[in-house]
Amino acid sequence: MTLFDRLKADAPEVWTSYVDHPFVRKLGQGDLPLDAFKHYLVQDYLFLIQFARAYALAIYKSPDTGDMYQALEGVKAILDVELNLHLELCREWGLDRTAIETAPEMTQTMAYTRFVLEAGMAGDLLDLQVALAPCILGYAEIGRTLADRHGDGLHANPYRRWIDEYSGEAYTRVAAGFLAWIDQTADIYLTENRYPRLLKLFGKASALEADFWQMGLNYPGKR
Amino acid sequence: MTLFDRLKADAPEVWTSYVDHPFVRKLGQGDLPLDAFKHYLVQDYLFLIQFARAYALAIYKSPDTGDMYQALEGVKAILDVELNLHLELCREWGLDRTAIETAPEMTQTMAYTRFVLEAGMAGDLLDLQVALAPCILGYAEIGRTLADRHGDGLHANPYRRWIDEYSGEAYTRVAAGFLAWIDQTADIYLTENRYPRLLKLFGKASALEADFWQMGLNYPGKR
Amino acid sequence: MTLFDRLKADAPEVWTSYVDHPFVRKLGQGDLPLDAFKHYLVQDYLFLIQFARAYALAIYKSPDTGDMYQALEGVKAILDVELNLHLELCREWGLDRTAIETAPEMTQTMAYTRFVLEAGMAGDLLDLQVALAPCILGYAEIGRTLADRHGDGLHANPYRRWIDEYSGEAYTRVAAGFLAWIDQTADIYLTENRYPRLLKLFGKASALEADFWQMGLNYPGKR
Amino acid sequence: MTLFDRLKADAPEVWTSYVDHPFVRKLGQGDLPLDAFKHYLVQDYLFLIQFARAYALAIYKSPDTGDMYQALEGVKAILDVELNLHLELCREWGLDRTAIETAPEMTQTMAYTRFVLEAGMAGDLLDLQVALAPCILGYAEIGRTLADRHGDGLHANPYRRWIDEYSGEAYTRVAAGFLAWIDQTADIYLTENRYPRLLKLFGKASALEADFWQMGLNYPGKR
Repeated sequence: MTLFDRLKADAPEVWTSYVDHPFVRKLGQGDLPLDAFKHYLVQDYLFLIQFARAYALAIYKSPDTGDMYQALEGVKAILDVELNLHLELCREWGLDRTAIETAPEMTQTMAYTRFVLEAGMAGDLLDLQVALAPCILGYAEIGRTLADRHGDGLHANPYRRWIDEYSGEAYTRVAAGFLAWIDQTADIYLTENRYPRLLKLFGKASALEADFWQMGLNYPGKR
Repeated sequence: MTLFDRLKADAPEVWTSYVDHPFVRKLGQGDLPLDAFKHYLVQDYLFLIQFARAYALAIYKSPDTGDMYQALEGVKAILDVELNLHLELCREWGLDRTAIETAPEMTQTMAYTRFVLEAGMAGDLLDLQVALAPCILGYAEIGRTLADRHGDGLHANPYRRWIDEYSGEAYTRVAAGFLAWIDQTADIYLTENRYPRLLKLFGKASALEADFWQMGLNYPGKR
Repeated sequence: MTLFDRLKADAPEVWTSYVDHPFVRKLGQGDLPLDAFKHYLVQDYLFLIQFARAYALAIYKSPDTGDMYQALEGVKAILDVELNLHLELCREWGLDRTAIETAPEMTQTMAYTRFVLEAGMAGDLLDLQVALAPCILGYAEIGRTLADRHGDGLHANPYRRWIDEYSGEAYTRVAAGFLAWIDQTADIYLTENRYPRLLKLFGKASALEADFWQMGLNYPGKR
Repeated sequence: MTLFDRLKADAPEVWTSYVDHPFVRKLGQGDLPLDAFKHYLVQDYLFLIQFARAYALAIYKSPDTGDMYQALEGVKAILDVELNLHLELCREWGLDRTAIETAPEMTQTMAYTRFVLEAGMAGDLLDLQVALAPCILGYAEIGRTLADRHGDGLHANPYRRWIDEYSGEAYTRVAAGFLAWIDQTADIYLTENRYPRLLKLFGKASALEADFWQMGLNYPGKR
């Protein structure tokens, strides 16, 4: 059993509240208000910038060069690929670059990103990985679930491209690499006495992810 | 003009939304629901633990020994004095130590504390001080304002002790020391080109403080 | 067996090269050149300032409040007590405060202190403690050994006061507290797979301490 | 005048002791003992790993995305290019990968690298850049100087490839980018009151670079 599976099994309620959040369900059904999606998308762009910093922190925190290369992949994935994809996605939905980059960061965006960065700085690489896991591995799980559940009807879903991205081969590979990397670190740094602390960290990070979806639903101008 | 006064003058809306938040006004009038206050008090205890870490970070970040001693005062004030006062205050309101220490940290508590720690780690001592300022100096301002506004009627206010604490001589001295310390750091590290970044930091920190009051009003069980 | 004893047992050569360094032996015999001692003393003052930062970092890195209080004791011991004792000791040997505070930091001083700070920042509290151990616990061991070995003749030793300090009750208590604290952390964070990394860290820190003694012997002006 | 030129002009002795160190002169003349060069080369490999961490720290410390991309170039340059070049260079001189990766880190290697990482963590991006400058910009200056001074005779120099690398177009471009980046940061963060602190930092880093060359000359087995 991977550390990730164990953590999920021990925090089932908060995990479900995140991966099966109403925002996610509506996204899959295609009936999510467009303004909710756009609000999320802009905040997710700001979120990714902080996540690139978190991966950079993982390079700094790496106990050996193998870890450094693994973490560098994460930085590159965000700064060299994802941010541009995001801007492209935003453009399709009529949001321009300046609007995105100057959007004010919402409390929920700050809460999760700074929590991850701070937990990672205060602790070791394993703490950082566990704090990052709900995002990196949760998105893969959400993508796969929505693709499976709504597979046939996806051509009509306005959010199809988002689902394609996170259920696609490229992202699945990134997530698989990250999953193996955590276990590799856990093999050296995990003890049973430490586990409850990691579980608490995982639970907080998952709850902050659920808050992030909720922020999308509470988009400005919502009646 | 102190840097703090300048920052407040340049972020008047968010500053007012924090220091004159409905929670604060109700606290002064004595008509804040007790459950709101208790909810706030418990979170504020968890908040202070993170703030002791932030002051410790300020020791680590100190460019010279004078700064280290100044920051050490902050750590001691929290760990040796305030936490105990807080537990005492909590006891008076029927909250016991275990209940407080095992209370789950709310998103708003995490958001502000981790934001401060993270901004301080990523930047320099001045960034850390500016992120801490809304809390340390804002509480002094709130204490003073409430004491002035409701001075005569305070004996009947159930929250009188809180107001006494933050308008009292001891806290006023702490705040004055911190105010002078920021200016001393700013004298070395502040440039006009940098100012807009500090203002943004100050605005975010103040908004997160306002969110923290709002969390108090949205206490669990509120109808 | 404490973690500290295990580490020493697994790094006997480097440990002996540190605790039984010629500088230490000469100090015990009282035939250390005064200029070597003064050179050491000034650098040790600069060293302590960095060590206060390392203890502050330990507060920041503390997983729970018990750890925070333990680490705070270390900060206070240095900033509130040891630095003054050091200045007093320096005065006795004719070194004035300004001379000490403006002395250039030697490479060996920077090497050990920055190594500790950096290992602690990159890793977790246990890494930081293991990097600090050779200093805190090694000095207690050296003080005790010299007091035992030269007990009777100490009244004639010009460095008696130094030996008294580190073999004395107060310092012995500090060291005992630190020893127990490491084991407490190790109880939660130590794994067998991780042990070799900690041993490497311990070995490097011990070697850097030996370099620090050697710097004393290579005082400026030595023929 | 760039900040780098100003710093060099204000620390001429330590700067010269570094860029015109006997190791450097012998390298240019081609009469450096091969064992000195090999000793240096192995330590420089370990040095680069820490420098990749320092660039990663710069990503983490970046106040905006432009800085993040600039710092990412540094991480990639080391992890994706330089480390391999180094191993290739080492192979040419008969050093195999395992020998290099398991070589013990010398005090001088630890001293400079940890100093840079620590100064960067404690301070802001400008502190980190100033601490990195002697390495990145000093190597470009050394490469250029040696190429100019010994240009005609280089074909017979056993260390020609090293000189070619650091005087070559690719490295010159990296250095020019870094030079401009510091000034861009200084434009926002430099004050006259702060300058003396940066100068001290620059002086220490340069002295630690000179120590690093000296370590090369004091190779093990040297008579």
